[in-house]
Amino acid sequence: MSLLEKINSPDDLKKLGADKLELLADEIREFLINSVSKTGGHLAPNLGAVELTIALHRVFNTQKDRIVWDVGHQSYTHKILTGRKKEFNNLRGLGGISGFPRFEESIHDCFNTGHASTSISAALGLAKARDLQGKKHSVIAVIGDGALTGGLAYEGMNNAGRSKTNFIVVLNDNEMSISKNVGAMSKYLNKIRSDPHYFKAKKDIDALLSKIPKIGDIITRKLQKTKDSIRYLLMEGSMFEELGFAYYGLIDGHDIAQMTNVFNRAKRVEGAVLLHVYTKKGKGYSYAEDEPCAFHGIGSFDVGTGVQNGNSKNFISSSNVFGKKLMEIAEKNERVVAITAAMPDGTGLADFAKRFNRRFFDVGIAEQHSVTFAAGLAKENLSPVVAVYSTFLQRAYDQILHDVALQNLHVVFAIDRSGIVGEDGATHHGIYDISYLSHIPNLSILAPSSPAQLEQMLDYAINEHKMPIAIRYNKIMSDACCDRQPFEYNKAQVIRAGRDITVVSVGCMLGRALEGVKLSGVDAEVIDLGTIKPVDTETILCSINKTGKIIVIEDNAKIGGAGCQIEDAIQRRVKKMGYDDFPIPHGTQSELYKLCRLDEKAIAEVILKERGFEKTT
Amino acid sequence: MSLLEKINSPDDLKKLGADKLELLADEIREFLINSVSKTGGHLAPNLGAVELTIALHRVFNTQKDRIVWDVGHQSYTHKILTGRKKEFNNLRGLGGISGFPRFEESIHDCFNTGHASTSISAALGLAKARDLQGKKHSVIAVIGDGALTGGLAYEGMNNAGRSKTNFIVVLNDNEMSISKNVGAMSKYLNKIRSDPHYFKAKKDIDALLSKIPKIGDIITRKLQKTKDSIRYLLMEGSMFEELGFAYYGLIDGHDIAQMTNVFNRAKRVEGAVLLHVYTKKGKGYSYAEDEPCAFHGIGSFDVGTGVQNGNSKNFISSSNVFGKKLMEIAEKNERVVAITAAMPDGTGLADFAKRFNRRFFDVGIAEQHSVTFAAGLAKENLSPVVAVYSTFLQRAYDQILHDVALQNLHVVFAIDRSGIVGEDGATHHGIYDISYLSHIPNLSILAPSSPAQLEQMLDYAINEHKMPIAIRYNKIMSDACCDRQPFEYNKAQVIRAGRDITVVSVGCMLGRALEGVKLSGVDAEVIDLGTIKPVDTETILCSINKTGKIIVIEDNAKIGGAGCQIEDAIQRRVKKMGYDDFPIPHGTQSELYKLCRLDEKAIAEVILKERGFEKTT
Repeated sequence: MSLLEKINSPDDLKKLGADKLELLADEIREFLINSVSKTGGHLAPNLGAVELTIALHRVFNTQKDRIVWDVGHQSYTHKILTGRKKEFNNLRGLGGISGFPRFEESIHDCFNTGHASTSISAALGLAKARDLQGKKHSVIAVIGDGALTGGLAYEGMNNAGRSKTNFIVVLNDNEMSISKNVGAMSKYLNKIRSDPHYFKAKKDIDALLSKIPKIGDIITRKLQKTKDSIRYLLMEGSMFEELGFAYYGLIDGHDIAQMTNVFNRAKRVEGAVLLHVYTKKGKGYSYAEDEPCAFHGIGSFDVGTGVQNGNSKNFISSSNVFGKKLMEIAEKNERVVAITAAMPDGTGLADFAKRFNRRFFDVGIAEQHSVTFAAGLAKENLSPVVAVYSTFLQRAYDQILHDVALQNLHVVFAIDRSGIVGEDGATHHGIYDISYLSHIPNLSILAPSSPAQLEQMLDYAINEHKMPIAIRYNKIMSDACCDRQPFEYNKAQVIRAGRDITVVSVGCMLGRALEGVKLSGVDAEVIDLGTIKPVDTETILCSINKTGKIIVIEDNAKIGGAGCQIEDAIQRRVKKMGYDDFPIPHGTQSELYKLCRLDEKAIAEVILKERGFEKTT
Repeated sequence: MSLLEKINSPDDLKKLGADKLELLADEIREFLINSVSKTGGHLAPNLGAVELTIALHRVFNTQKDRIVWDVGHQSYTHKILTGRKKEFNNLRGLGGISGFPRFEESIHDCFNTGHASTSISAALGLAKARDLQGKKHSVIAVIGDGALTGGLAYEGMNNAGRSKTNFIVVLNDNEMSISKNVGAMSKYLNKIRSDPHYFKAKKDIDALLSKIPKIGDIITRKLQKTKDSIRYLLMEGSMFEELGFAYYGLIDGHDIAQMTNVFNRAKRVEGAVLLHVYTKKGKGYSYAEDEPCAFHGIGSFDVGTGVQNGNSKNFISSSNVFGKKLMEIAEKNERVVAITAAMPDGTGLADFAKRFNRRFFDVGIAEQHSVTFAAGLAKENLSPVVAVYSTFLQRAYDQILHDVALQNLHVVFAIDRSGIVGEDGATHHGIYDISYLSHIPNLSILAPSSPAQLEQMLDYAINEHKMPIAIRYNKIMSDACCDRQPFEYNKAQVIRAGRDITVVSVGCMLGRALEGVKLSGVDAEVIDLGTIKPVDTETILCSINKTGKIIVIEDNAKIGGAGCQIEDAIQRRVKKMGYDDFPIPHGTQSELYKLCRLDEKAIAEVILKERGFEKTT
């Protein structure tokens, strides 16, 4: 690793001879593969962006120039080149560097990202602020074609295109969202990519340049004059041009020299420019190239075989349970349709998509549309199930309230990745869903504590409940307590009878709650809430009348969480255990539960304290 | 009104001779102007859509065909033609018909709207459901060019364009949002509209048809064959075509015969079609044509002069107070920039926009972008103020959380139209903002109870507070209690000392709370909360220690509202007065306060009850 060892800053990179860059890219790839194989992380998107990142840092100076990385899961090479190479051994670990850009980490990170499609809007803000303050640096948004399916990206383009701000959008087009990209925009990009002119052009640039139809801006004139060895060309960028961008494409995203040339030119363009760069997701690691979706975000794996190290066997993937059960329900109930926002694999719907092709809709990274579209389907008496991660469903808050709930439509929200998600950190924790859903009228909220309960809730939500309903569940679920009654709507279950204190557990916290009770030695009555809204007042009051004290344990922010629902329902104060009011960092789930005092030990301590015992440790 | 008297259903309309339709349109206009002059309502958008609506109902049958009206404020003619003419005397009144489509009112309303940009997604859902159920009717989304600036509309188009669903989008292009439309898409539409070919074409259709460059689809071929009297033409619809739509434009939106012909053809097109109809907002009423923005949504007015009947003098427009104060602050603090989402007038920023042109950004109906863009500006040390109505800011929930709050950026949210908004009803009430904001980390929330306090809070939020902060205020504000200390952050104010019960009032509820106290005759201590988050625990505890009882009165949903914040802060139960968990209908503000038991009398009753007195009435 001789070259990479010498690179500790973008300045070091700039000193390197151009002929060394390909070798450096190879070394970075090797570093990425080895490093991520140990820590886990986002691999395929980073392998695709190695040359792109090198070229950006050759041309721009991120101590003053601003690069906003859309989503941010492609920023590893950027982190390596900006002095954070050594910290990759604790990538996404508690206290270690984040898997996303974080300005708290480095001056080279100008804007934090995590959710998709924010970069154009954010970068436009950075650019306008530059102009108003009379500064002169470059501002670049690097956005994938997947993120371009999000409405926010369009809103950003619609505003950037008409503004008179110097501003560069690098479209990192790899034909993928996390899964295969979808939609008319994707088709359009594909059309550009597959245009035969592109390949002809490589052979005969001069001939092509003379045919360019849309001449007029400075760049084109310069290009006409110089007719140098740059192998890019002006093509059908009409949609982007209509939106006010100067369009340059198609650019080979693995050709550093070509990109360096284009970036140097783009720097001098007046107004908004879109550079259409074509990259291969997973580039340079055969397993990732073949299965870019599987290698998008992964745990640790074996470099030689590409086989992932297994998870603990005690845990069950909620997405799998959900996907299988939904297929079973859909076999019998043909009104069932499923919708996902660019997450057919992540949400467990890949098999459903194959089996029920016409009844499955992947709408791209378009959570807002997923919900309003579902409202339309429900209005015509279908039973749409919208499967979206908790943190991404935040995008559709207004649509859930305005389009589904106010019309009281039967849409089922399958909210995956609720609670602490672990290594992805603050931008991805699903710890706000109860808070942003519980004040929405007509909407019920459920939380399963076991795989069997998830199945029963799904069955109930689809086949019996005729109003808006949400089921929120964590990525993995333990089956700590199987000895249970079947789920009943609005009926909490006493899991363990006790006399000294009532412990209400919400969804997946049940295993931890039971362990905490055991640790405490207190004769606690443990209740599995099941239905968060409405609250089963009767069961809980009955228990408190016996015990006199109540603790509510949930994997959600305390403000607006299940504890508040219960408090209002029973008209009494409860001791709430959930997340305090600050952004929760990244780390393993168990580290974070401990950090947030939601681990078994903390639960035991609170039980003892609330019960009035002294702490026994 | 001889014609209109006979029209009580779309069937009646269909029986009318084509030669009578223009006369009917005139009669409808007269009816609209007279009716709205008495009740208030949305006038200009409805005047623009009279012929369009007649043409739609001539061609389609809304007992089976589905028309989704985007926003819905242009649906009055539709309501008139579908049997609701007589109910216009109580338009938007409590118990009367809504100003927006409501399927609860009529079988002819297929999907409720209110917020912008939902129609394409919703209609696509209706269309897919139709296909899956083997039905055959038409599905039409009617969307304005303003609503096309919203990301949700783009997400819908991106999905509609690639779907193989028969589906019609009518783009009702009037160059306006509520105010003048903005953005690259708007420029693009303008380019189409101003193409000289359009005007030439009117004179010589046959000649033009022979020049049409993009031939291929069925419609065009048919058109070529028939060369009938239809005066529309195929033009530069390339952006829509790239998004997978067959594009037909420009169509004269006041020519019923032309539209009828086009709609009849569009009905038979396979796949998605976009019909670009050009209309004039306010058409047929000179005052509304001249000032379409002022006549967008209005109170009652004098038909002869166009002069609006004044509001009660005791009330002050918060938007005016906000706009003026912001200019004053911006004069001294040049880091201040202002952002609005298509509401420069509504939010009181029209003068700011003129005075500080470079520091003002109207981003169109793009609330998501408004917030992420502001985050970018704030990251570069500007002080952006985002002025958006409470109900529309719901669209930007994720951006407030993810882009502003997690990065702890100094963005000021000026949340206008909080609380009950009155006649616009369930889709527009701003009664959820405290609930959707209060669990967001790093974000503070303020609520002024007087114009002076709004000014002080704005000054504080911009010049002193360095973190995310929101100020929520109602449209109008009374100055019931001027005898007050200046605002201090995180400091509640005792407005009236008392010994028997603590009444905490949130923001604009203060006048009502004081009246309620007076009515009750109880010696209540009245506290003006000011800062909702964080809560001034000290002042409130000090009061309760004296009184022993506490009521919190707020213009927000009880779930997740200020009452919950206070409850958590003081660790004691409070009696909450706010909105119960159901959609609040339309009506005047005072009717709704009464309906929701937040009027003075209800407050007095609760005070008496909580205090332990018998009800005295």
